Amino acid sequence: MNDEITSAELPAGISASDEVTVEELQLALRNHGMHLEGLRHDLTPPGMHYLLIHFDVPEADESTWSLSIGGLVRNPVELSMADLRSRSRVTLPITLECAGNGRARLSPRPISQPWLTEAIGTAAWTGTPLRPLLEEAGIEDEAVELVFAAADRGIQGEVEHDYERSLTIAEAMRDEVLLAYEMNGAPLPPQHGFPLRLLVPGWYGMASVKWLTRITAVQEPFEGFQQTVYRFRQEPDDAGEPVTRIHPRSLIIPPGIPDFLTRRRFVEPGRHLLRGRAWSGWAPIERVEVSTDGCGTWTDATLGESASQFAWAPFTFEWDASEPGAVELSCRATDADGNTQPLEQPWNYHGFANNVVQVIPVEVRAPAG
Amino acid sequence: MNDEITSAELPAGISASDEVTVEELQLALRNHGMHLEGLRHDLTPPGMHYLLIHFDVPEADESTWSLSIGGLVRNPVELSMADLRSRSRVTLPITLECAGNGRARLSPRPISQPWLTEAIGTAAWTGTPLRPLLEEAGIEDEAVELVFAAADRGIQGEVEHDYERSLTIAEAMRDEVLLAYEMNGAPLPPQHGFPLRLLVPGWYGMASVKWLTRITAVQEPFEGFQQTVYRFRQEPDDAGEPVTRIHPRSLIIPPGIPDFLTRRRFVEPGRHLLRGRAWSGWAPIERVEVSTDGCGTWTDATLGESASQFAWAPFTFEWDASEPGAVELSCRATDADGNTQPLEQPWNYHGFANNVVQVIPVEVRAPAG
Repeated sequence: MNDEITSAELPAGISASDEVTVEELQLALRNHGMHLEGLRHDLTPPGMHYLLIHFDVPEADESTWSLSIGGLVRNPVELSMADLRSRSRVTLPITLECAGNGRARLSPRPISQPWLTEAIGTAAWTGTPLRPLLEEAGIEDEAVELVFAAADRGIQGEVEHDYERSLTIAEAMRDEVLLAYEMNGAPLPPQHGFPLRLLVPGWYGMASVKWLTRITAVQEPFEGFQQTVYRFRQEPDDAGEPVTRIHPRSLIIPPGIPDFLTRRRFVEPGRHLLRGRAWSGWAPIERVEVSTDGCGTWTDATLGESASQFAWAPFTFEWDASEPGAVELSCRATDADGNTQPLEQPWNYHGFANNVVQVIPVEVRAPAG
Repeated sequence: MNDEITSAELPAGISASDEVTVEELQLALRNHGMHLEGLRHDLTPPGMHYLLIHFDVPEADESTWSLSIGGLVRNPVELSMADLRSRSRVTLPITLECAGNGRARLSPRPISQPWLTEAIGTAAWTGTPLRPLLEEAGIEDEAVELVFAAADRGIQGEVEHDYERSLTIAEAMRDEVLLAYEMNGAPLPPQHGFPLRLLVPGWYGMASVKWLTRITAVQEPFEGFQQTVYRFRQEPDDAGEPVTRIHPRSLIIPPGIPDFLTRRRFVEPGRHLLRGRAWSGWAPIERVEVSTDGCGTWTDATLGESASQFAWAPFTFEWDASEPGAVELSCRATDADGNTQPLEQPWNYHGFANNVVQVIPVEVRAPAG
């Protein structure tokens, strides 16, 4: 989009204002982000993990919850939570990010959940692998996708629907796709999908359907609202490419102390160990660079080990902050496929997959005395 | 304030715009509210409980954490978490609300954390009572207040400080004031004060200092920033009265299904059981009324039992939604001292203690067929 566009020329749902509407604020107060200081934890405490709920948190009773697997399958089945818990059990640390993370930094801004940079989190999810269940159900040859339906229902895009997303059979058959019932060793919190949710490691969060009730094998690609909206478009009616895996991203824990309102940071002069995390849904993180001069020059950070193939990797960087004054800190991750983070974010109509490098303005104080 | 005030006449920190600034948005994404459907839980799941963090969540190690009790005391003491855990242990369900809840509904709007109605939550807090510790420390006669200092540090009101709040000796000596180390049976989550926080039942949340490190008996009333800012003022320099206990409030779980963006509700025609919660820090809730005609007429709801003197009370109301069309649902709580909720909120400069009745616009659908 053109930077000098005026409000009158914008399509519906796009704002050129720097301020956010009350409707966006309502969403921001429900769908909270992770405090960036939470990056110090390998596993994000549940209440700190980002959250995006399209409709309401459904009222759920584990004792009567059931998951059906049907449609184009030879052996349709209805599973209780006890059935699912009695099956093989796997725990996998997974980093999730909302596809709309960073949306509110775009200009002009798509009107929806107004994320800045905090729609992230990593948890150890425990559940049973999906693949053996699908093999037992026996997917018919003419099926091309599986549709995952949730218990949360509402209106979006002027259509009333249960939240539903699909995966191709091949994607759903990946070994690491889970039906999860625990988060960090405790039952799922209500707002994270209690009692059962899908986990699609490597993909943006919209694929990991919470409050999962039905899996249906279908013979045509699914075209429900929540499937077709998640596409990279320049105009509302573009066909666009689907949003799938998480683009590489890295974030530093903002150093020093904040100002309450502006969140501007103040740091004592001296050497500081910057810490952060980096992740990509496409391939392992191979490199993280840090800039302390507003993206002018970059230096490699020290990269640590991820807790799993699908969890963020820690990194550290020794920062010599001996010069007082204003500094901009940034970091940039590159994965093994060569995907990296842009310095300027390409625009798309719904504001998806924003992975522009983080910029933390910091004031290094003058030495005391 | 006058409704027809213009921006030019407003004091600093007050906005006449309907839209919120990026600075307010940054706070809203850190300081999340409770989903109103969470009112169905007697005890709010920890990640759903509202959260207001002035600065950053401090990095805390339980094994080295210590609490000092000093100042004007005969026996200053330094307590480890093991010391505190070995003392008498109490669990108390407590409803907390942010003093700024509802701030963003004021017009003009004080610029700070922009709450709508969701800055609430109830948890079972476990810890040791404060009073015996104070008695052992032996508060000197000339002490008038205790200052509670936290590990979170930052800048607010242009002053760098640790978050600190005081209580009079009498208030701190109330039997139910706790030093808490568990929330709903688990260690405090980092963002709720791990490993130790103060709990002042009945008061707005600012009094319940998180990440508590020091208690100091002092001979003059404390005048730190976080003490003096929490006052009911009409102008920035008014003396004002201090903000203390929670004003009565009640909230209904919004019925039906929402529209994603507007959160507007749609309900099927028929009879519905409305459910909600009511609380007051001044006295037990004695009455809750519901209006289904935009606050024109009020009918008593059925009030249930609170889990404790300091926890919200549930209520229900049979709503006959047989007439299709737009409806406004409201509720109004009254406590045993006769305190009730206003239909129009009196304005104050920082936007504290907003307890105007909730209004839920709902569309009752036409019968099918």
